[in-house]
Amino acid sequence: MNKHIAAYGEIMMRLEVPDNLLLRQAENLKYSFTGTGVNVTGLLSQFGYETSLISAVPENSIGTAAIGAIRRLGIHSDFIIKNNDNLGMYFLEQGFGSRPSNVTYTNRQQSSFNTTDISEYDIVQSMKGVDVLHICGISLAMNNLTQNNILTIVKVAKEQGVKIVFDCNYRPSLWGENGNQRAKPYYETILREADIVIMSEKDAINTLNLTTTKESKEEQLEELLLVVAEKFSIDIIAGTIRTIQGSNQNKIKGYLFKNGTIYYSEAFEVNILDRIGTGDAYTCGVIHGELSNMAPQEMVTFSTASCVLAHTISGDTALFDTDDIIKIVNEEKIDIER
Amino acid sequence: MNKHIAAYGEIMMRLEVPDNLLLRQAENLKYSFTGTGVNVTGLLSQFGYETSLISAVPENSIGTAAIGAIRRLGIHSDFIIKNNDNLGMYFLEQGFGSRPSNVTYTNRQQSSFNTTDISEYDIVQSMKGVDVLHICGISLAMNNLTQNNILTIVKVAKEQGVKIVFDCNYRPSLWGENGNQRAKPYYETILREADIVIMSEKDAINTLNLTTTKESKEEQLEELLLVVAEKFSIDIIAGTIRTIQGSNQNKIKGYLFKNGTIYYSEAFEVNILDRIGTGDAYTCGVIHGELSNMAPQEMVTFSTASCVLAHTISGDTALFDTDDIIKIVNEEKIDIER
Amino acid sequence: MNKHIAAYGEIMMRLEVPDNLLLRQAENLKYSFTGTGVNVTGLLSQFGYETSLISAVPENSIGTAAIGAIRRLGIHSDFIIKNNDNLGMYFLEQGFGSRPSNVTYTNRQQSSFNTTDISEYDIVQSMKGVDVLHICGISLAMNNLTQNNILTIVKVAKEQGVKIVFDCNYRPSLWGENGNQRAKPYYETILREADIVIMSEKDAINTLNLTTTKESKEEQLEELLLVVAEKFSIDIIAGTIRTIQGSNQNKIKGYLFKNGTIYYSEAFEVNILDRIGTGDAYTCGVIHGELSNMAPQEMVTFSTASCVLAHTISGDTALFDTDDIIKIVNEEKIDIER
Amino acid sequence: MNKHIAAYGEIMMRLEVPDNLLLRQAENLKYSFTGTGVNVTGLLSQFGYETSLISAVPENSIGTAAIGAIRRLGIHSDFIIKNNDNLGMYFLEQGFGSRPSNVTYTNRQQSSFNTTDISEYDIVQSMKGVDVLHICGISLAMNNLTQNNILTIVKVAKEQGVKIVFDCNYRPSLWGENGNQRAKPYYETILREADIVIMSEKDAINTLNLTTTKESKEEQLEELLLVVAEKFSIDIIAGTIRTIQGSNQNKIKGYLFKNGTIYYSEAFEVNILDRIGTGDAYTCGVIHGELSNMAPQEMVTFSTASCVLAHTISGDTALFDTDDIIKIVNEEKIDIER
Amino acid sequence: MNKHIAAYGEIMMRLEVPDNLLLRQAENLKYSFTGTGVNVTGLLSQFGYETSLISAVPENSIGTAAIGAIRRLGIHSDFIIKNNDNLGMYFLEQGFGSRPSNVTYTNRQQSSFNTTDISEYDIVQSMKGVDVLHICGISLAMNNLTQNNILTIVKVAKEQGVKIVFDCNYRPSLWGENGNQRAKPYYETILREADIVIMSEKDAINTLNLTTTKESKEEQLEELLLVVAEKFSIDIIAGTIRTIQGSNQNKIKGYLFKNGTIYYSEAFEVNILDRIGTGDAYTCGVIHGELSNMAPQEMVTFSTASCVLAHTISGDTALFDTDDIIKIVNEEKIDIER
Amino acid sequence: MNKHIAAYGEIMMRLEVPDNLLLRQAENLKYSFTGTGVNVTGLLSQFGYETSLISAVPENSIGTAAIGAIRRLGIHSDFIIKNNDNLGMYFLEQGFGSRPSNVTYTNRQQSSFNTTDISEYDIVQSMKGVDVLHICGISLAMNNLTQNNILTIVKVAKEQGVKIVFDCNYRPSLWGENGNQRAKPYYETILREADIVIMSEKDAINTLNLTTTKESKEEQLEELLLVVAEKFSIDIIAGTIRTIQGSNQNKIKGYLFKNGTIYYSEAFEVNILDRIGTGDAYTCGVIHGELSNMAPQEMVTFSTASCVLAHTISGDTALFDTDDIIKIVNEEKIDIER
Repeated sequence: MNKHIAAYGEIMMRLEVPDNLLLRQAENLKYSFTGTGVNVTGLLSQFGYETSLISAVPENSIGTAAIGAIRRLGIHSDFIIKNNDNLGMYFLEQGFGSRPSNVTYTNRQQSSFNTTDISEYDIVQSMKGVDVLHICGISLAMNNLTQNNILTIVKVAKEQGVKIVFDCNYRPSLWGENGNQRAKPYYETILREADIVIMSEKDAINTLNLTTTKESKEEQLEELLLVVAEKFSIDIIAGTIRTIQGSNQNKIKGYLFKNGTIYYSEAFEVNILDRIGTGDAYTCGVIHGELSNMAPQEMVTFSTASCVLAHTISGDTALFDTDDIIKIVNEEKIDIER
Repeated sequence: MNKHIAAYGEIMMRLEVPDNLLLRQAENLKYSFTGTGVNVTGLLSQFGYETSLISAVPENSIGTAAIGAIRRLGIHSDFIIKNNDNLGMYFLEQGFGSRPSNVTYTNRQQSSFNTTDISEYDIVQSMKGVDVLHICGISLAMNNLTQNNILTIVKVAKEQGVKIVFDCNYRPSLWGENGNQRAKPYYETILREADIVIMSEKDAINTLNLTTTKESKEEQLEELLLVVAEKFSIDIIAGTIRTIQGSNQNKIKGYLFKNGTIYYSEAFEVNILDRIGTGDAYTCGVIHGELSNMAPQEMVTFSTASCVLAHTISGDTALFDTDDIIKIVNEEKIDIER
Repeated sequence: MNKHIAAYGEIMMRLEVPDNLLLRQAENLKYSFTGTGVNVTGLLSQFGYETSLISAVPENSIGTAAIGAIRRLGIHSDFIIKNNDNLGMYFLEQGFGSRPSNVTYTNRQQSSFNTTDISEYDIVQSMKGVDVLHICGISLAMNNLTQNNILTIVKVAKEQGVKIVFDCNYRPSLWGENGNQRAKPYYETILREADIVIMSEKDAINTLNLTTTKESKEEQLEELLLVVAEKFSIDIIAGTIRTIQGSNQNKIKGYLFKNGTIYYSEAFEVNILDRIGTGDAYTCGVIHGELSNMAPQEMVTFSTASCVLAHTISGDTALFDTDDIIKIVNEEKIDIER
Repeated sequence: MNKHIAAYGEIMMRLEVPDNLLLRQAENLKYSFTGTGVNVTGLLSQFGYETSLISAVPENSIGTAAIGAIRRLGIHSDFIIKNNDNLGMYFLEQGFGSRPSNVTYTNRQQSSFNTTDISEYDIVQSMKGVDVLHICGISLAMNNLTQNNILTIVKVAKEQGVKIVFDCNYRPSLWGENGNQRAKPYYETILREADIVIMSEKDAINTLNLTTTKESKEEQLEELLLVVAEKFSIDIIAGTIRTIQGSNQNKIKGYLFKNGTIYYSEAFEVNILDRIGTGDAYTCGVIHGELSNMAPQEMVTFSTASCVLAHTISGDTALFDTDDIIKIVNEEKIDIER
Repeated sequence: MNKHIAAYGEIMMRLEVPDNLLLRQAENLKYSFTGTGVNVTGLLSQFGYETSLISAVPENSIGTAAIGAIRRLGIHSDFIIKNNDNLGMYFLEQGFGSRPSNVTYTNRQQSSFNTTDISEYDIVQSMKGVDVLHICGISLAMNNLTQNNILTIVKVAKEQGVKIVFDCNYRPSLWGENGNQRAKPYYETILREADIVIMSEKDAINTLNLTTTKESKEEQLEELLLVVAEKFSIDIIAGTIRTIQGSNQNKIKGYLFKNGTIYYSEAFEVNILDRIGTGDAYTCGVIHGELSNMAPQEMVTFSTASCVLAHTISGDTALFDTDDIIKIVNEEKIDIER
Repeated sequence: MNKHIAAYGEIMMRLEVPDNLLLRQAENLKYSFTGTGVNVTGLLSQFGYETSLISAVPENSIGTAAIGAIRRLGIHSDFIIKNNDNLGMYFLEQGFGSRPSNVTYTNRQQSSFNTTDISEYDIVQSMKGVDVLHICGISLAMNNLTQNNILTIVKVAKEQGVKIVFDCNYRPSLWGENGNQRAKPYYETILREADIVIMSEKDAINTLNLTTTKESKEEQLEELLLVVAEKFSIDIIAGTIRTIQGSNQNKIKGYLFKNGTIYYSEAFEVNILDRIGTGDAYTCGVIHGELSNMAPQEMVTFSTASCVLAHTISGDTALFDTDDIIKIVNEEKIDIER
């Protein structure tokens, strides 16, 4: 039977200015529904897994549209509830060349997801038959309600034997002054329960108050992830090292720490159609790698290729099959698929 | 020299689903910047007046786009400040035939306008050289801050000899339970200062606790407006009676109370391209009528024709010249203007 | 627990030329996925029912897109299989005024649905927990395979106690010469099993070789439906009488035959945004009426109002709640819903 | 063998603001290539005739695009030459309801057509095998060059036995002060050569200095056309009487004067998708009527129905078959053509 | 007098998902009419040749649109007939970076072209005045009817002294199991009649059962093409070697075998806007080179530059002048052409 | 107080074919309002300066739209007058890869700006409070009227102590045969008054009849600019050296001559979204550098970075803050700005 991955996460509306225009130049927006949890379960659904999302959307036409979009991705919507009035939104002005993309958030603290208490969901039921639960550190940054929500759902999940995938995603701007200190206890609690963790060297430094004197990202990761893995008994810690050449060109190298060893993929040159959400495609690679028992080196290469390919798909949510990833892994150069 | 009309009002982003689609059916939105104050000063600017808007927009690319849009309408933006993070938004699903249009607000309480204290503006300076100040009752419904803001700006305006145009615009859903009682003192205070008032029979009943036993709207208005005009010493009270045949067809009849007499326009059959903001075009007719010394009967006909024509313009803000209105008044049927 | 309505029907791709253009004038098409079964289960899903579709789509990106679209409507896709290479398509040139809409079919005989044997589906499983099965007469017109498929699924459904809703939908052009005679045995077999039938006076004449000397549609229906209902022991026979004023304006009057009596709705004037699929909204009204035990007169009015409202929704599949229909029934004229 | 209709006329670029927007509101334009000659030969080509256009377009990418568009309509382009730098353009803001459409011309005097001497074309060759030549009075209003061009081509055509269809199309704004007097000799010269003339009562008054004391359009036409037909020995004089209810609704009644008698069609109610160029569809009806030997009453009804149907086609150039017109004549109300 | 190139080939509808989206993500398609024969005659028409297409399209609005599109390209449509009901279609999801483009065919076997017997065309008449006939190997893969059609038209053409250009275009997926063996006799027959052949080393191996032990494409071509040219007495065999770096970047090197010698162009780096149909632009280069008596080295460079430039034009059909190609040959780097 | 920069220059309508299509392939255009003066004041307005434009637009809806667009950019429109009937236009077909962009002008000589005498403007008033006036050499190429206009406004400006920025912009095609000689006296007159000059080595050679035997652009500039600066006592002469790799990739190196020394920026690799108007962003850099007292080396780097960034903004007019330029100067590579 198919493995089942659930995510507890916010659904946001992405409002993209088309054709690389600025908001002040245009009159049209392209909208879609997204979020880390959406992206992860959406792509895993495409990989062939059962997936579901636990979330809250407003009780209006925006909420209805959001649920339809989630279902269209093949994600089960049984545990998406309608509550309160707002959906988190972000406006995206796509960058070009030396001009970076610009994201403007609006309405996030008042969103249905960030104002809905965990007791409103039937959490116990939502974890039935679930193998993996994905959660994201951004929810920890919002408010007391969301912090408590995350802690509660992780607890329930663990009680039912569900594995936890935790994407640290520490955003200094959201935590504000002395954010590191306030974030630390929450991150520590979650990390103790987590089985797979997406963590950069900056996440480690910011959320756990760790330090390193190493200079290269690779050396920093090697030092820090060892400490984190041991302290919190985490199976896998993974992530990517991204080198920015411009808005249309990056270099991506994946890393994966397992059983005391760090594994790296090669560094892929990436042409970028849509940068946002590509980290979530990496996460999907790791989850799939683990659920299908890939060896660590294969897993990090597969995950990085998934991330690479995600840059070629418009929108936050990547949409391709594992076969497509394998072609990237094998560096097959295909003219046209007919 | 040109007369100068200022408005103190919120700028909102209108996000319209195109082609009469529902939000859940589409992937694109058309956006524009609007609001009662924008609509009134935008059209009066087109009539040839100096106009300006006193408002607050967020300190981000949304705010920048909003200011550009206001300027494009010919409105001075010197007193639009950037403050806080949100712009009020509404999603519009255009109705058709027997299906009514649907408006979904988002983020209104947290908007820059509704969270910016009046002291942040240079109000005294903004009233220099201004002849007329337009304000809207919706701001009274928001919160204590906005209620105080309105009272303050009206006070400053009156001290500088500026005439006040007040659009009652009482929305029961915004005031909530016992709203009538809470609204009453605010409305009474403003009405005492107002020179021109846009008020329906329902506004009179809801905000002033008045009653009538008459049945037709006309009789109700005749009874109620007399009471209001006398009690608050208001020069002009005006508005429209709208009969809904469907989303694409309405009937509109204007009324105007002046010097103890009520004047009516004929009832115009209206084909509707865009319903929203058409009341503001009526207001513009009244303001222009008063500033150009029209007789009451001419004024009510002109204002109603302005409202009628506004239904044929896409977007909230009407865009036409007084000449175009005169053609409606004269019932000129024009084939194509070349 | 929610009632569950399943449909066995073809998913087609609708390719619509936008802005009332002709195919030869344009360069863009708007596409969506539709079909009688899609429309019926899509709207019933919106009414709050569990719904599912039994269908086949091609094993390619078109099939994947089709399944996503079905899920977006809230329909379960567990019994949609991927088989063969083609999806039925139709091009739609929307009419205007005195110019009728034009539909051009392509590729219908070779579609996955019309070339997939019923044995490819897990029919027995698909009928588990289902209360109502909807089938459409168009499938009878395709080929021997589809004729057999329909007969088989109806048999399985009846064995499991599922009620049958049969939409006659006799299309002379699809049956060709002597079509009436060839169609007759199939229609008779299905009608014997059907509980609710959507049938016009022309369907009765064409498929059952019935005759009438009456002149008005109403009299013809009264005569013919009585015969049909008695002969085949059908609970409900229903449909609409449509008067064409032009592509943007029709008049619709519903009829419903039950227990020997025919009931009519009033005749509604209809402004048309999208004509196609509106009959399916009528069917949904009848199914909902029956499942919620409406009285016949209420049922026919509700169903007709559903059909009327469906004309105001772009696309084949109507999307509204029963509340919205009730407002049409009550002739509430709503300005803007906020 | 097919009859061949040629037109000597200007190709213009039509730049239409979409969605009933004003130029100042939008950022996109829809463009097409049009002109009276284009419209007439384009529709006649659809009727099944051989057609060709004699015209000049600029020697650049605009000219190339124009020729492609003409060919796409089925018109032969062998006598369209590339000369000079400009194409005439007009911007179209589509009206709605009580707001009339607005046309803004640009660059007309400097267009390739209006600056190319008739000697640049191989006129004699272009009239080979041609049965009918269509010319338009607007060219008479431009400048001495175009006036001479028209006179020359008419002379050559007549020498080769080609019938002349002349659309008077007198535009006071183009002729300026004392335009009537200056226009008169040109119109008289052409009318003497013309076989079929499209002329309104205003054309008769303005270009020939005729007068009438009658009040109704019908009576005026009856008086004036008799005079014109006799004086200039014209076979057929025809046109339409248009009553404007609004930008989306007109009433159209055709008239046709032949052998001393005037024939009228019924007055058709017209829903308008696109008003421009509909008179040219009337002209096509008259030309087809004459070439296919229709009786006068049939001809005027057919021509009016062609004009009516043209209002339902987007763009200046009507695109339908004679069969479609017959359905309008017969008042067949068709639901959907499948 | 201008040389005349005819093509006998299928017209297909290309349905392209815009903005690099996947079919499952979008709601709009851009459509155009294309095919190898369309591409070749379309570009040669732009080069200044007379061109015509012999083809069949359906008897409906799709067929009408197709003919208009062909004419717009400057191709004569006198020998395009309307027959049967279907047009071949393909959906195009444009690739990006490491994601290849995806083409999904639909409805090809049932297309009008592939179901119309050659006797339906007036082939003898269609070859009058024709200098070159272009045919494509894909037609050989369809069915017995199309195989016979090709053989017949080639025979008729040769009898009238028309040169044959044959594009091998062997597609293994279309020929299925043991396709090589079944294809061989057809390819051999055509090659015997052909004057110019577009053939890759794979075409030679697959269709003629040839073998080579060489490793590089260049060496393989040198060995194989010599054999083919001698065996079938072919004047010119040509093609391109394409190196895929990604969907937006290829390297192209042309080769041309003539009089026992193979000539190569330099290898051009190509930025790709639209990959499809670029091989046809190479073919046009060869045809033009031959008809204008270019030396072999000039011809292969010109043809490759034509292919290179075709990658910068949206759509299958390249649109530029020979002058534009010469600039590529000369490596002129132009800022902006004004 | 803010410095105030005025420009006297033409407003043109840019009509861009979207999606890299050719005009003959498309049916839609994107329009905007632009011109050297618009671009310079638009970007300087964004930098925080007061700006105004002195120009003339037609007395119709095109003129109204143009003024709105100028105001939207933050430019004062008080000295834009409405006069005559035409706006200059250009059609833009965006290049790709080895295909250059193509610009087709239309209607330029007849534009309102190029037919409006300087006496129609209130020039003396328009120079009140202005610090810098920007003018462009293209106006010198139009006709006697525009030549005189430029000379007059420069004279008035100098009398009021306004600094003159002169962009030479010599276009050989506009001046025609012996253009160099006719241009010389005008350029000499203006250069004598100019404080900052944008001049390439070709401008120097063409307009001043200078010669150089040097080969590299750098050496030529060093020789020629020294001569020009001394002869005409110009403070600053600046410009860019552009190396074309293709339509999407250029290399840009800025130069700036001040006090006898020439300064160069590094050569930036530029990814191109929109090439047009990028030189004006360079000019803005120079003006801002001078007004904010940058050292020459800083100034040339800043100006070049401004030019580089302008290539990443759609449309002629660059829109970014000086902060954004500083990031380019500092080579900060930013992932996404949130």
